[in-house]
Amino acid sequence: MHAPEIHTGDPMAAALALAQRAIGLTGPNPRVGCVIVGPGGELLGQGHTQPAGQAHAEVMALADAASRGHSVRGATAYVTLEPCSHHGRTGPCCDALVAAGIGRVVASLQDPNPRVAGQGFERLRAGGVDVQVGPGAAESRELNLGFFSRMVRGTPWVRMKVAASLDGQTALENGASQWITSEAARADGHAWRARANVVLTGIGTVLEDNPRLDVRLAPVKRQPDAVLVDSRLELPADAALFVPGRRLFVYAAVDDAARAEALRARGATVTALPGPGGKVDLAAMLRDLAAREVNEVHVEAGHKLNGSLLREGLVDELLVYLAPRLLGQGRGMSTFGPLSRLSDALELEFKSIDPVGEDLRVIARVRGRDSF
Amino acid sequence: MHAPEIHTGDPMAAALALAQRAIGLTGPNPRVGCVIVGPGGELLGQGHTQPAGQAHAEVMALADAASRGHSVRGATAYVTLEPCSHHGRTGPCCDALVAAGIGRVVASLQDPNPRVAGQGFERLRAGGVDVQVGPGAAESRELNLGFFSRMVRGTPWVRMKVAASLDGQTALENGASQWITSEAARADGHAWRARANVVLTGIGTVLEDNPRLDVRLAPVKRQPDAVLVDSRLELPADAALFVPGRRLFVYAAVDDAARAEALRARGATVTALPGPGGKVDLAAMLRDLAAREVNEVHVEAGHKLNGSLLREGLVDELLVYLAPRLLGQGRGMSTFGPLSRLSDALELEFKSIDPVGEDLRVIARVRGRDSF
Repeated sequence: MHAPEIHTGDPMAAALALAQRAIGLTGPNPRVGCVIVGPGGELLGQGHTQPAGQAHAEVMALADAASRGHSVRGATAYVTLEPCSHHGRTGPCCDALVAAGIGRVVASLQDPNPRVAGQGFERLRAGGVDVQVGPGAAESRELNLGFFSRMVRGTPWVRMKVAASLDGQTALENGASQWITSEAARADGHAWRARANVVLTGIGTVLEDNPRLDVRLAPVKRQPDAVLVDSRLELPADAALFVPGRRLFVYAAVDDAARAEALRARGATVTALPGPGGKVDLAAMLRDLAAREVNEVHVEAGHKLNGSLLREGLVDELLVYLAPRLLGQGRGMSTFGPLSRLSDALELEFKSIDPVGEDLRVIARVRGRDSF
Repeated sequence: MHAPEIHTGDPMAAALALAQRAIGLTGPNPRVGCVIVGPGGELLGQGHTQPAGQAHAEVMALADAASRGHSVRGATAYVTLEPCSHHGRTGPCCDALVAAGIGRVVASLQDPNPRVAGQGFERLRAGGVDVQVGPGAAESRELNLGFFSRMVRGTPWVRMKVAASLDGQTALENGASQWITSEAARADGHAWRARANVVLTGIGTVLEDNPRLDVRLAPVKRQPDAVLVDSRLELPADAALFVPGRRLFVYAAVDDAARAEALRARGATVTALPGPGGKVDLAAMLRDLAAREVNEVHVEAGHKLNGSLLREGLVDELLVYLAPRLLGQGRGMSTFGPLSRLSDALELEFKSIDPVGEDLRVIARVRGRDSF
């Protein structure tokens, strides 16, 4: 059985559509699609990156062409990222393309991975392959912002999810928050969890709501791992956050060997990263997560941790669900400030606005955060 | 010069489009359009309601046909509301239609004005005119929700305008609020002021910002009047709210003859409507405004008066501009509550969501408020 074919009138658009299918599947590897077409533009083979350690998009497309009985000699491969040149968990894709006799490679952009970074293109050219770079670059980068962020900035892309009433309340003063938004919005939120490598929350949310923070209301290819900011290591050993088959990273500000050991016994990875004021050094935590190959962080936390992340300039994007109701007074989205001037506001840019069920989904990017 | 012609493939759609042109022009009269077509569907005349005391849509369309040299004998008149049957500031439209020899009237819906309420249709039928009612009913009612509200409920349609950051803050804690939204959103807000009969605010806003609350950033046919909730009659005699050529209605909870007289000397209409707790009886105020022929109230007030209006169930619709920024902490949209259960939330329904400049405009209706 082949995957459903994608219209190849625009092979790079088809390759980008294939790359979309790799969302939630390939982390920490980038989401890459590849389409191989013959001289008349006919589809010979297609594929996208598989889970880490398995085949990349180019190898999948070559195998697909072979399984269809097509020769790819002299054919053109459209690929949404530079073919890799290094021996990682798999062999170099550029060697596979050369070996298969591919005549031309059209790639969206150079791989920011310092182990590739143009060497893939060089090896293709050295192998006699014609190389063009550029088509689909913006889309491919956007699809892999987390991967690019980790490679270029050394930190993951941080997306903060908030569910609020139209007047910006995320909970009543008594803490009640289940549920402000509709089931449709919660399912959509789970789909966003599924595309991230980790879901991050704070100990306040755990002690108050005891959430699992796994993906249940949307299709999932592999559960994202969980990250907990737990300055004083208060996580109960029976918390719902311990989900079998998923890793749990706990960041603390204290070095409490007994508590840490109890959590490690339950399978958690406990790291002490003390910052000022007895709090976890959140910036160091993000660097540590990047070192652990985390591309995208999905934050679902309370207003205090949200406020800390925003105040420290660590958030790239907001994913906000607004429910058609007013709550009057309650807990806001994030406690930072109070500001003294409007010009000190955290400036955003709306990226998309869509109805989700009866609610509204707003994706807003912190201005300038995607310029890296 | 005739007004630009409107495509008459669907005469009722054309009549509704004409009625739109009456927004901000005809209050307290409804917004009505009329298109007269001949037997082959050809346009003979068109018109819409003029300012109160001047011609209604039907008379305008008849005059338009006459000025074009067309006979309307046996023609069909499409009109978005029942032709009036009473001598108000003008003569009855149904008599004019009968006299002109109109053969058929297609009307969107019955006039809720108790002085009409079906009598227009009766008189048309008695005059030998064929009458059909129904096409365009929903659109016509929506366009005239304020008029219908005043006629049916005895209160105006109350639309509350809010400008906030994405996290629901309408001002910083120190009161700074100019400006949270963009000039494009403020101009759009002025266009909404222009369609209302009155712009309503509270004394807190006046003492803090001294606003004019007139229409400056959008085209305007006549300035809406101003309404001030001023429980203790604190309005300074030199407030910017005194705008020449516009009426100012001040509602107080105290009966302070000297202060009231000072404001009357400046042209204000001062009414004492004391309610519980030394506050103005807001429900009584709305009934009083309806008695003064106010169809639509545009509220631009602070979080306290907003909260009182919402708490008392007096708001029909929210017009919310959300700016792409976060302010963290500050003043919310409306101070009501705190609620003890999420099920006590004020339930809304999103009617429209549109980008306005860099901001977002959300129109949300309080659930059930348009069922009257």
